[in-house]
Amino acid sequence: MTRETLAELRELVAAALERAGAQRAMAEATARALVLAEAQGLASHGLSRVAQYATHLRLGRVDGRAEPVVRRAKGGAVLIDARCGLAFPACELAVVEAIRRAQEFGVAYAGVTDSHHAGVIVDHLRPVAAAGMVGLGFANSPAAMPAAGGRHPIFGTNPIAAAFPRGNGDPLLIDLSLSEVARGKLMVAAREGRSIPLGWALDENGRPTTDPKAGMEGSMLPIGAVSGTKGAMLALVVELLVTALIGAQFGFEASSFFVDAGNRPRIGQAFVVIDPGALAGRDAYLDRLEVLVKEMLTDADVRLPGARREALRRRAERDGIDVSDALLASLRAA
Amino acid sequence: MTRETLAELRELVAAALERAGAQRAMAEATARALVLAEAQGLASHGLSRVAQYATHLRLGRVDGRAEPVVRRAKGGAVLIDARCGLAFPACELAVVEAIRRAQEFGVAYAGVTDSHHAGVIVDHLRPVAAAGMVGLGFANSPAAMPAAGGRHPIFGTNPIAAAFPRGNGDPLLIDLSLSEVARGKLMVAAREGRSIPLGWALDENGRPTTDPKAGMEGSMLPIGAVSGTKGAMLALVVELLVTALIGAQFGFEASSFFVDAGNRPRIGQAFVVIDPGALAGRDAYLDRLEVLVKEMLTDADVRLPGARREALRRRAERDGIDVSDALLASLRAA
Repeated sequence: MTRETLAELRELVAAALERAGAQRAMAEATARALVLAEAQGLASHGLSRVAQYATHLRLGRVDGRAEPVVRRAKGGAVLIDARCGLAFPACELAVVEAIRRAQEFGVAYAGVTDSHHAGVIVDHLRPVAAAGMVGLGFANSPAAMPAAGGRHPIFGTNPIAAAFPRGNGDPLLIDLSLSEVARGKLMVAAREGRSIPLGWALDENGRPTTDPKAGMEGSMLPIGAVSGTKGAMLALVVELLVTALIGAQFGFEASSFFVDAGNRPRIGQAFVVIDPGALAGRDAYLDRLEVLVKEMLTDADVRLPGARREALRRRAERDGIDVSDALLASLRAA
Repeated sequence: MTRETLAELRELVAAALERAGAQRAMAEATARALVLAEAQGLASHGLSRVAQYATHLRLGRVDGRAEPVVRRAKGGAVLIDARCGLAFPACELAVVEAIRRAQEFGVAYAGVTDSHHAGVIVDHLRPVAAAGMVGLGFANSPAAMPAAGGRHPIFGTNPIAAAFPRGNGDPLLIDLSLSEVARGKLMVAAREGRSIPLGWALDENGRPTTDPKAGMEGSMLPIGAVSGTKGAMLALVVELLVTALIGAQFGFEASSFFVDAGNRPRIGQAFVVIDPGALAGRDAYLDRLEVLVKEMLTDADVRLPGARREALRRRAERDGIDVSDALLASLRAA
């Protein structure tokens, strides 16, 4: 283990991505996002992704020269074309546009098409909360979950994120994928020789399974799949918001992020930004939010969403983070 | 049983609500919505609600003279004040405003504050789909579910709805509450002396329970509560979108719809309308949607969301529906 500052890590990551073919702005935006995820304890969306992105850059699944552009705009609606680059500069542009348009028109919808893996979706909403506005974020990803009643994967795990600013204190930061559990839980169960509950996964023939290995070869199930179809319906909504509306590819059309070869995923992200000042008013919004927070905290075990991540981030900014020597070596070699 | 046409039922319902104190426009808008729900087979949101609404009108929990107004507007954002009337005229106004503003600004956010029970949320989005646009709908309701980690009810079951128009064929109509199951499933289990699975409910002390009667005295659980907090986080997002942003009351501040006495609930609804023409373009949106529909239907058991409701609605419009004599008598007596 070596203790590294976040600035050092950002430079290491950006340099690795540049060597793989990313232009400087793309490498820097991506490095900021991956190190921010790592600083919050989200290792699966942090430094471990650098090798994957670098491979996709080298194999042409990502265009390292791409610069995102505003392809179309009308009032509060704006369509960003990521042009098959890494997702982060495009998402940054989308959020800047959405904030500006929400300030002018009260609400904005910014879609990002022809995109790639966008990391921790709620992190894209941090500037929204910092501007005193409410943000929602959506994304699809290569197919992992079936439609309601279906047997083969169509949708990604399709995260939904939201950020709500507070007057004093950290914003509420909510970020969840729509699978009942993360695939990592199947990997752990398989390693430990345990079965998994019904409702976590289907096998490759689309049958419910309690065998984690069979689930890893099949589909993850959406939340609440034992009782009904609600999670699958939410996954459909997210899928359409980030594809048909903005022209991006569906999860079932995109090659996996976790293999080297494959197509340009051309998936989508979308951000909704809403200005409380155009609706209840900024003060009324902040007052109401605190009433809810106070009520939530009357139950001893309630933690505000984002609080743990923010505490870890602050510590990491102050003290740096410990990175394994193997990971550091892979960043330097990438 | 008596076979009634939908027009006859609408007139019966409107007359009952007028006798309870609703002005004509409020009575008619409410009658349209309740009969539409009944026609789709959604009895819990149909004619059975008339007696409840009438009682709330008589007791002053609803102001029958209220006329909804645009309280504030800026670009795509608009705030409708339901003024403690029945929700339906206010939601109609909100959706008309949202469609008009989305046509002009690409996207709209219409909130309805100081509102009451809004019935089947996705039905409010039918005019959005008819206008060729994508709609999302959200609502809160009197407290039924705890926060993540919490022991007492704070949020409503907080529905999420979405409508996606198609070029040919019915729009996709999605509508789900965020509880793992509806409370009716607990009532059925209690009547039949069966236990319920963990993950459906907490008892009144906030402990997980398999006893349906204990669950009915406690809280419903959000989807996916056995595995984690995703459903509770979604409920929080919906709660804030329809309250703090627009000035409405939280679920824990509103008296139950299912009791006679209580406060004016003053809960909230919100509708997001997005014009595909401002983003991918109308033709591209329709083409992409059909690609997804086709892929979904390769699995034999997949049904498109809304298809069953639409089939029932068409049959009811053609043939009328059978209504029990007890229900008809209660409508005439209400």
